[in-house]
Amino acid sequence: MRARVLIRPKAGILDPQGQAVERALPALGFTGVSEVHVGRLVELEVQDESQLPAMCERLLANPLIEEYEIQTGHTAAWGERASEEGTAA
Amino acid sequence: MRARVLIRPKAGILDPQGQAVERALPALGFTGVSEVHVGRLVELEVQDESQLPAMCERLLANPLIEEYEIQTGHTAAWGERASEEGTAA
Repeated sequence: MRARVLIRPKAGILDPQGQAVERALPALGFTGVSEVHVGRLVELEVQDESQLPAMCERLLANPLIEEYEIQTGHTAAWGERASEEGTAA
Repeated sequence: MRARVLIRPKAGILDPQGQAVERALPALGFTGVSEVHVGRLVELEVQDESQLPAMCERLLANPLIEEYEIQTGHTAAWGERASEEGTAA
């Protein structure tokens, strides 16, 4: 089954990437943007989804400073959603 | 409004992080995992969601090698979903 893991810095943990994006956007003319946070996205095909929390704890995320969210039930494989929201080229 | 942008390497583009994860998982005892891809997650509060595609094209993603997916309608702020799927500690 297809699974997706969203990993983000925990609230209160420094997020320098998010800060950098938040500062860069106004310089490019984008206003009204706040609370920018940057994390990681892991998509994978897994036979036993019950392994996912352990995989997150042991490899995918750093549970000391990151929180993770597991989403399952996505059936589209990598690349199949390319035209869904936008892929420039 | 709260928005989320999922950014991943386009199909066919080298994904060394995904390969590294895919190789590391069996060594930790996790089997049956394949097609691992690692991308970025950006969550932000934006007043005008029509700006999001341009923000992706110009700053958040590299449209030459990455595809992005914009999700809106998430109302939870950063950190509010901490206990939804799992936050260790």
